Amino acid sequence: MKLYSYFRSSASYRVRIALNLKNLPYDYMPVHMLRDGGEQFQAEYRKLNPDAVVPTLVDDGDVLQQSLAIIEYLDETHPLPPLLPASPSDRAYVRSVALQIACEIHPLNNLRVLKYLKKTLGLSEEAKNAWYRHWIESGFAALETHLAGDTRTGALCFGDTPTLADACLVPQVFNAQRFEIDLSAFPTLQRIYAHASQLDAFARAAPSAQPDAE
Amino acid sequence: MKLYSYFRSSASYRVRIALNLKNLPYDYMPVHMLRDGGEQFQAEYRKLNPDAVVPTLVDDGDVLQQSLAIIEYLDETHPLPPLLPASPSDRAYVRSVALQIACEIHPLNNLRVLKYLKKTLGLSEEAKNAWYRHWIESGFAALETHLAGDTRTGALCFGDTPTLADACLVPQVFNAQRFEIDLSAFPTLQRIYAHASQLDAFARAAPSAQPDAE
Repeated sequence: MKLYSYFRSSASYRVRIALNLKNLPYDYMPVHMLRDGGEQFQAEYRKLNPDAVVPTLVDDGDVLQQSLAIIEYLDETHPLPPLLPASPSDRAYVRSVALQIACEIHPLNNLRVLKYLKKTLGLSEEAKNAWYRHWIESGFAALETHLAGDTRTGALCFGDTPTLADACLVPQVFNAQRFEIDLSAFPTLQRIYAHASQLDAFARAAPSAQPDAE
Repeated sequence: MKLYSYFRSSASYRVRIALNLKNLPYDYMPVHMLRDGGEQFQAEYRKLNPDAVVPTLVDDGDVLQQSLAIIEYLDETHPLPPLLPASPSDRAYVRSVALQIACEIHPLNNLRVLKYLKKTLGLSEEAKNAWYRHWIESGFAALETHLAGDTRTGALCFGDTPTLADACLVPQVFNAQRFEIDLSAFPTLQRIYAHASQLDAFARAAPSAQPDAE
C-alpha cells in the first residue's frame, strides 16, 4: 500500500494511526502542501485525488480518498484489531465522535480555509487565529460534554481499546496544542489524548515521526 | 423512531432520504433553527445533541448524532435495500463521495458559519455569498471530475441504485440551487440530481414536503 500524506495534515495522521493499529506496512509518499504552491495541486496528484487534498491510499490498484472512508476500508479488509465496536448502536456512537471532529471542527480550520480568510477576505493574523480558536473551542466543548457524559468512555473514547474516534481525536488535540489553545476546559479530551498518544501506533503516526517532518 | 429535524437542514435531509429508502416510518420532531434564537440551543435538545445541530435520531432509547453515522446505523440495522455496495473498495468509493460533500463542502456553508462571517467578522452580504459560492463551486468541480471519470457512475452516483452518496449529493445540489449557483459546469451532478430527486424516497424527503416547511 501507498499512503500519500503530509506530515502535518491531520486527515493523513488519522489514517497513519489506523494503518499502525492494524500493523500494516505502507510506502510513505510525501505530498508537500506548502512547497511550489502546493504539491497537492499538481496534475499527477490530482489524477489520484481530484479534490487536491491528502491523504490518498493506493491499494492494489484501488485509489481511495477521504480519511474516514479509508479507515472503514482498512477495517473491512483487515478486520483485526477492529476499529469499530460490535453493536450497531456502539458503532454509531464511535462514528458520531469521529464525524463530529471530521465534519464540525476540522473542515473550518484546514489549510485552504485559512488561506481564504487571509488572502481573499484579508483577515488579520489575530482575526484568523480567533476563528481557529472559536471552532476548536466550541467543537471541543460539545465533544467534552458528549464523552464525559457517556458511560462508554474509558481510558479512550470507547472503553480502553483504540477506535476510529481516537484516530480522529488525537490529531485534532495535537493541532489545538500546536496553536497553543488552552485545553483546561476539556479534561476528558486531554486525558484521552495523553493516554492514546503514548501508545506505539499513535506515537509512530505523529507528525514529528514522519519522513517528511520538518 | 424519532427524527429531530429542520426542514432546511441538509444533514437532516440526508437522513430523511435514508429512512425513506429503507421504508422506515418515523416521528418527525421539528427543531426550528432560527426561531427563539435557535431551538437547537435549548437545554432539552442539547441533552440529546450536545453539539446543538440536527439531525438526532432516537431509536429505542439509543440517541444517535451525525447524519452519516445515523445512515450507517440504519444500513446495519435494516440491511435492505443496502445503501452501500458489497465490496470494500466500492464501499470506500461511495463513502468518499459522501464524505467529500459532508467534510469539504457542507461544513463551510452551514448556518453557524454564515452567522460567524456576518456577525463576528462583519462581512457584507456580497462577501458572504461569494464565500458560499466558492466552497460549493470548488467542491463541485472536484466531485464532477471524480464522478464523471469513474466507470461506476450510472444514473446515480454508484450505478443506478441509490446509495449514501446520493443521499448526500441531492441535499447539497438542492442548497446550491436555492442560492442560485450556476451549475452548468457540473453536468454529471445535475444529471444525477435530476434523476434522484424524482424518486419517491427523495421527493418525500425534500424540504418543501416536511411538516415544518415554511
